[in-house]
Amino acid sequence: MKWQLSGCACLFLQACFLGTIHGGKVLVWYTEGSHWINLKPVLETLVDRGHEVTVLVHNASMFMDSRETSRFSYQLFNVSVSLKEMTDSFEDFLQFSMYEMGHMNLLEIYIKFYQLASRDLELSLQICNGLLRSEAIMETLRTGGFQVLLADPLFPCGELVAEKLGIPLVFTLRLSFGNTVERLCGQLPAPPSFVPAAVSKFTDQMGFVDRLLNLLFYWSQDLLAMTSWRDLDNYYSEILGRPTSYCETVGKADIWLIRTYWDFEYPRPFLPNFKFVGGLHCKAAKPLPMDMEEFVQSSGNDGIVVFTLGSMIKNLTKEKANMIASALGQIPQKVIWRYSGEQPETLNSNIRIYDWLPQNDLLGHPKTKAFITHGGTNGVYEAIYHGVPMVGIPMFADQPDNMVHMHSKGVAVILDFNFMEAKDLVESINTVVGDPLYKENALKLSRIHHDQPVKPLDQAVFWIEFVMRNKGAKHLLVHAHHLSWYQYHSLDVLAMLLAAATLIGFLFLKICRLCFRVCFRRSRTKNKNE
Amino acid sequence: MKWQLSGCACLFLQACFLGTIHGGKVLVWYTEGSHWINLKPVLETLVDRGHEVTVLVHNASMFMDSRETSRFSYQLFNVSVSLKEMTDSFEDFLQFSMYEMGHMNLLEIYIKFYQLASRDLELSLQICNGLLRSEAIMETLRTGGFQVLLADPLFPCGELVAEKLGIPLVFTLRLSFGNTVERLCGQLPAPPSFVPAAVSKFTDQMGFVDRLLNLLFYWSQDLLAMTSWRDLDNYYSEILGRPTSYCETVGKADIWLIRTYWDFEYPRPFLPNFKFVGGLHCKAAKPLPMDMEEFVQSSGNDGIVVFTLGSMIKNLTKEKANMIASALGQIPQKVIWRYSGEQPETLNSNIRIYDWLPQNDLLGHPKTKAFITHGGTNGVYEAIYHGVPMVGIPMFADQPDNMVHMHSKGVAVILDFNFMEAKDLVESINTVVGDPLYKENALKLSRIHHDQPVKPLDQAVFWIEFVMRNKGAKHLLVHAHHLSWYQYHSLDVLAMLLAAATLIGFLFLKICRLCFRVCFRRSRTKNKNE
Repeated sequence: MKWQLSGCACLFLQACFLGTIHGGKVLVWYTEGSHWINLKPVLETLVDRGHEVTVLVHNASMFMDSRETSRFSYQLFNVSVSLKEMTDSFEDFLQFSMYEMGHMNLLEIYIKFYQLASRDLELSLQICNGLLRSEAIMETLRTGGFQVLLADPLFPCGELVAEKLGIPLVFTLRLSFGNTVERLCGQLPAPPSFVPAAVSKFTDQMGFVDRLLNLLFYWSQDLLAMTSWRDLDNYYSEILGRPTSYCETVGKADIWLIRTYWDFEYPRPFLPNFKFVGGLHCKAAKPLPMDMEEFVQSSGNDGIVVFTLGSMIKNLTKEKANMIASALGQIPQKVIWRYSGEQPETLNSNIRIYDWLPQNDLLGHPKTKAFITHGGTNGVYEAIYHGVPMVGIPMFADQPDNMVHMHSKGVAVILDFNFMEAKDLVESINTVVGDPLYKENALKLSRIHHDQPVKPLDQAVFWIEFVMRNKGAKHLLVHAHHLSWYQYHSLDVLAMLLAAATLIGFLFLKICRLCFRVCFRRSRTKNKNE
Repeated sequence: MKWQLSGCACLFLQACFLGTIHGGKVLVWYTEGSHWINLKPVLETLVDRGHEVTVLVHNASMFMDSRETSRFSYQLFNVSVSLKEMTDSFEDFLQFSMYEMGHMNLLEIYIKFYQLASRDLELSLQICNGLLRSEAIMETLRTGGFQVLLADPLFPCGELVAEKLGIPLVFTLRLSFGNTVERLCGQLPAPPSFVPAAVSKFTDQMGFVDRLLNLLFYWSQDLLAMTSWRDLDNYYSEILGRPTSYCETVGKADIWLIRTYWDFEYPRPFLPNFKFVGGLHCKAAKPLPMDMEEFVQSSGNDGIVVFTLGSMIKNLTKEKANMIASALGQIPQKVIWRYSGEQPETLNSNIRIYDWLPQNDLLGHPKTKAFITHGGTNGVYEAIYHGVPMVGIPMFADQPDNMVHMHSKGVAVILDFNFMEAKDLVESINTVVGDPLYKENALKLSRIHHDQPVKPLDQAVFWIEFVMRNKGAKHLLVHAHHLSWYQYHSLDVLAMLLAAATLIGFLFLKICRLCFRVCFRRSRTKNKNE
């Protein structure tokens, strides 16, 4: 039996739809960083398919540029936040995640995280104001004929804009901390016994203590969310002019495009309007620039290692950079290192440093033996796509969790950024390159990724267009959205049953006692009479 | 904006896969009646795609015929059950569902159902014996090089044969009563607050009493299942030569192909290895036989009504047949009636009776205004596919539940087979034909059905082949399969937390009391001293 699959699924939607669709209008709520990188291919494809894409972007955006030459229109709006405030908030979060958290106890982490989240929310609400209180822009949007709004729920108010405009809503999301948004607002079921809370670093296989901690993690995140969301509830109610809540508005999303798939994710229950489109940005490798190709080829049978800590980390301490350079100098592979900070003091000839890398093309190169990564979802998915084992040096947000996923699936070794030494890095690279199991597992994940009935990007585009065609996808929304939490868990019904059982038990006992007394009295009377 | 979608999804798999695959080997466990009808198109497609299909069928099968000329091989096995015993068991079930159940109280229904299910199980185990204790046939199968076994879990032992042969397992299933098999063995989550138990006749929108009854229905079915399955547990353990259970073996299924979709189903949580492929047997209508087409055309603007009670109901009482004929005689539409019993006494000229109908072609005919149906899933799906409103006269099994689905989605009126009168039938037909909302809703369901990224049949075939290509799909199985029920619901963790909270509360109270006593004693001593 012989199978030939690759490149098939991709043909399907394009072959069928292209040329038969005349432009719809898509509105996009701003996102930042890797979220925006992941959304771009979707928007590009929508433009390819004849739609007009308008991106709402504010003037304090850190990573989006409304002057950028692209095929989307940008609708700029002014906000009362400065770029510096945004950057400071982000830097503080980085500082906390990368350096401070490790020295804190749980309560301190919780309080600090709450403070950071509250400040971030405050800034977000000021951004929301920039659009939602600008009658002129809102009027432009209202008359713009948009058929759908795309948003990442980590950037609040996208759902509010959709609700104000009365248009369907499609979310694109990697995760929220503890999956609070997906669970509490999207009604995504997550039994804590085998669904690890996002960023908890647990896998789906948990012992008693892990299950206990996972449950407590869920609860703590729920508490945090419900406390933080109060401000959003008030804001949403004010803007919509009726009592509502953040969660209610988010819960109206027609489709949730989740940026993972079962190659990466632990299998878990989900809902009909949750579509898993992880790795939609991945594509076959293109040829490398000539000098880079020459360097790669010069590696011979040892091959190369690709190393990047992502676009967020531009500088390392001198000590750290030297340590990394010394480690990389000890391995037989050639190393291609993306780094724009100060160059290490000594650099072995097997290492080349670049400001920017054609990462996907490098990971798809047959000479690539391993990927040293900070564990961002986009990079991890490129490694999965091309079947490359990883050494993870995770920093913040979902990165540690992402690497736990890859480690538990046998395709990665994890290092601690703060405590790793040169020998750890050397050992890790040698392990993932030398032990064939890592490559085998990586190829297995790659096979799962490629062997889907529809390519992730096509699926994402399909559901966005579905929502546009059908004015929403309300037939996919569970009725749980209309139940309170105690109704959802049948607690009122169970209380009623318990009450009824208690009452019946009580009456039964009373009757038994009565019968017993009557009989006993009779027999006593009888005895007396006798 | 203009969309053109139809006929696209279907192209995808066929265009990509055909001609590139060299035959695999597919084994099929026997099914009966409409289950078999629904499985056939899948098997036909597998043959089209170069696979060899071998169907295991026993010599007391009611609906499958191993001598039937088809493109599958049949592996016959002899069983110690007679065809008469099988037919009697089935007739008793029909009799109970259609005539007796209506006059029974809940307890009587429960007991009778248990008796019927037990007898059915007894027969099933004898059938299992026919294959599993035949060393010769098992040896043939072991050396047959099969890559997958397809089975409907309503016919036990398919999973056991797959386990014995050590090959992957794909289920095809409409439902089990109360979804016991899917929930208890497949780990399909089903919160009773918004997921109505199969055959409970509830929708997803339940008030307090409905939610209470739904929960009790789940529990009663669980109790029934766990009682009935004890024999299966023993049998499976005996055959496999190690302690196991029915549920454990069923839970190993790689893929569950569920024969519904969100056009029919209420949105609900599900799992990555549950694929909804409802209506996979539906296809575009072909032209009718000439005389039938002439009759249909003669209906003018009034159009036609298609009427069938399925292949199970061959005879009606004379009284019932006359009543139906009289009702059908009163409507302006022409009627095409599938019926092979004794002809009614008078038959208006607008009615034609046929032994067999090209049902799909009739439902897809532009003149068809309504479908009078017993509510079998296959027929209901053909009506959804072609967007035809329905009058449901459900009889047994999932039929009443199916019609509740269609009624709640606004495409059907339901009649009671036992109590309906001519005027009810006339009124119902007039309602679904006359009120444009029924047609509108039917077209909406049809649109949902057609607007999928992959056609149901292609999806079913894709996942069967996926399992063959990858020797299973274990990466889609939730870890819940390895948890006990109390671990799944975190009851051990909650008990531990409760115990800890109680202990802490108790210690806190003790300490408070101690402090209070010490202080109080001191102040008393002080007072005394003073």
